[in-house]
Amino acid sequence: MSNEKKRSAEAMTNWAIRCLEQQGATNEVAQSMASHLVAGDLLGFRTHGLLRLRYNLQALAKGATKGAGQPEVIQRRAAIQLWDADLLSGLYVLPLAISRAIDMARDYGTGTLVIRRAQHVAALAVYLEQATQAGMLIQMMCSTPAQEVVAPHGAKSACFSPNPFAIGVPTAGQPVLLDMSLSMTAAGKVRTALAEGRQLPYPALITPTGDYSCDPQTFVAEKPSVLASLGGEQLGYKGTGLNLFSEFWTLGLSNYGRADAAAEDGDANTVWLQVVDPTALMTAGAFERQAQQLVNAVKAAEPIDPNQPVRVPGEGALATRERQLRQGISYSAATWRQLEWCAEFCQQPLP
Amino acid sequence: MSNEKKRSAEAMTNWAIRCLEQQGATNEVAQSMASHLVAGDLLGFRTHGLLRLRYNLQALAKGATKGAGQPEVIQRRAAIQLWDADLLSGLYVLPLAISRAIDMARDYGTGTLVIRRAQHVAALAVYLEQATQAGMLIQMMCSTPAQEVVAPHGAKSACFSPNPFAIGVPTAGQPVLLDMSLSMTAAGKVRTALAEGRQLPYPALITPTGDYSCDPQTFVAEKPSVLASLGGEQLGYKGTGLNLFSEFWTLGLSNYGRADAAAEDGDANTVWLQVVDPTALMTAGAFERQAQQLVNAVKAAEPIDPNQPVRVPGEGALATRERQLRQGISYSAATWRQLEWCAEFCQQPLP
Repeated sequence: MSNEKKRSAEAMTNWAIRCLEQQGATNEVAQSMASHLVAGDLLGFRTHGLLRLRYNLQALAKGATKGAGQPEVIQRRAAIQLWDADLLSGLYVLPLAISRAIDMARDYGTGTLVIRRAQHVAALAVYLEQATQAGMLIQMMCSTPAQEVVAPHGAKSACFSPNPFAIGVPTAGQPVLLDMSLSMTAAGKVRTALAEGRQLPYPALITPTGDYSCDPQTFVAEKPSVLASLGGEQLGYKGTGLNLFSEFWTLGLSNYGRADAAAEDGDANTVWLQVVDPTALMTAGAFERQAQQLVNAVKAAEPIDPNQPVRVPGEGALATRERQLRQGISYSAATWRQLEWCAEFCQQPLP
Repeated sequence: MSNEKKRSAEAMTNWAIRCLEQQGATNEVAQSMASHLVAGDLLGFRTHGLLRLRYNLQALAKGATKGAGQPEVIQRRAAIQLWDADLLSGLYVLPLAISRAIDMARDYGTGTLVIRRAQHVAALAVYLEQATQAGMLIQMMCSTPAQEVVAPHGAKSACFSPNPFAIGVPTAGQPVLLDMSLSMTAAGKVRTALAEGRQLPYPALITPTGDYSCDPQTFVAEKPSVLASLGGEQLGYKGTGLNLFSEFWTLGLSNYGRADAAAEDGDANTVWLQVVDPTALMTAGAFERQAQQLVNAVKAAEPIDPNQPVRVPGEGALATRERQLRQGISYSAATWRQLEWCAEFCQQPLP
């Protein structure tokens, strides 16, 4: 597409750091925020990349996201800690939390952090390799106490936030990186379908009359539709169970539920993350060989369409990153316009 | 139904203990096996209750399941342990493992066990209350290294076992108990549909030609169909991700994958279980209040069908148990015939 811009990850990261610093983030905070947003672009999670820089700059400008400070350790026991991020960006706090979890896993076998009031976390996928590069498995769940947009099974009104679920696993080759929502689709995908004037590929919405619908217009109606839990009309009780798993382990274990979330919390998130050190249970390298066998078994399964080999989670994203590291990150015209807004807002010319 | 038999849980448990002892189980092992099978009946998980006593008695008789002994601790770090169950029944080993996990959670905040080579585990639901009664959250996953019956997304051949996933959560009221498979349906449900001569309610099977099918006959064809991962034709990549989560955390962390499972392993299972003590992060009772708020939110969601209130996982099972504890457990004529076989096999007359 001729309207696309291609820029190096390094140039875009450095530019985004300058913008974030201009809105009051310390260099340490700005570096972590910028590099994790660009990491989303690199992996192809474009709705969670620099497209969201504008949102972060505005949140810093109005003080909704803090640009300096440290998360507070609220309470802890040897292998688990509860943090309050005090409205710092998740893009800054989560890497600190994973680092702490890795240390705990070295000592105790597992390390667990529950973090409340973390602003924008973007794509969970961008954090996973911090653990896998240390030879560890990671599981992450995120929820948003001030949001209710996903319905439990059998209901036509919402009680859950959109809850992403992610795992990262080291193998003998490249890591497995899974990042998915526990609903039938994500709100962002509904908005994209709306902007492009097309129907959703399957009934992921539930209207106020209780009908499953593919129509994204219903999502912005005066009485809007809500997102269905994974499993949909027939198996939505499974997605409801998984959403409860996410919300008990995030909101419940943070002792900060929907009754506690203040209006100023806005999009602030609660995250559960846990790292497991496989060398607690076996010699170094043994887990990676077992994991590789599982990956090989998935890839050896007979494809339904001979032209579409069976994929392992993260495989496509890692290939996209490889290509974009060589050729530069592609930004669409629409995203570039958002970046031009940021450049002007911060008086930092784009690369 | 006039063909049903009603018997007290106590009478059936005592009878099953005698049968299991007669096949060589120690009293301790027999008690745990019998009471956890009857617990499945009580909760209404009838395919995982005493219906499976015959299978367990035969496995004891031929030595496939050991009736005496202790699991071996293979390796450990403070908050995680790997056990080899040495082909003891999961019905005996899992309660021991949960007890150990609870102790670890008291000391470290979380306690994790990975157990390989555990024979029949029945329904994960029957173990959850051991943790919730101690005020703790529990998550369990189970896989079977010698089994391949669930396809990854995009494939028409299988590489996963049927992998149940369960959580138990204490609230201010009754616990939340979730026990579900990560595939579109369970093999047992396909066999039931086959026996009853009806189609599955949705396409949960994938035929050797790569078509999604509701027809249970395809499951017993010469080239059989396989089970689809949760999410099905459109969202099966999510179920595939969840199956990988289960198998990395069970088979991978047990260092005992499909390449290691010996022919004599048969149905032996690998289990990941983790207990979290919420008082590591907050005062006693605070988690239960948060959990109750989440339950209340689910129950307050507006039902699609006004006559079908929105359900919380475990609610139906706990009501079934309540009723059967008062009125006795109902056994169908077909199940009773299996129990008569057991009575004769062990020379232990039925109550």
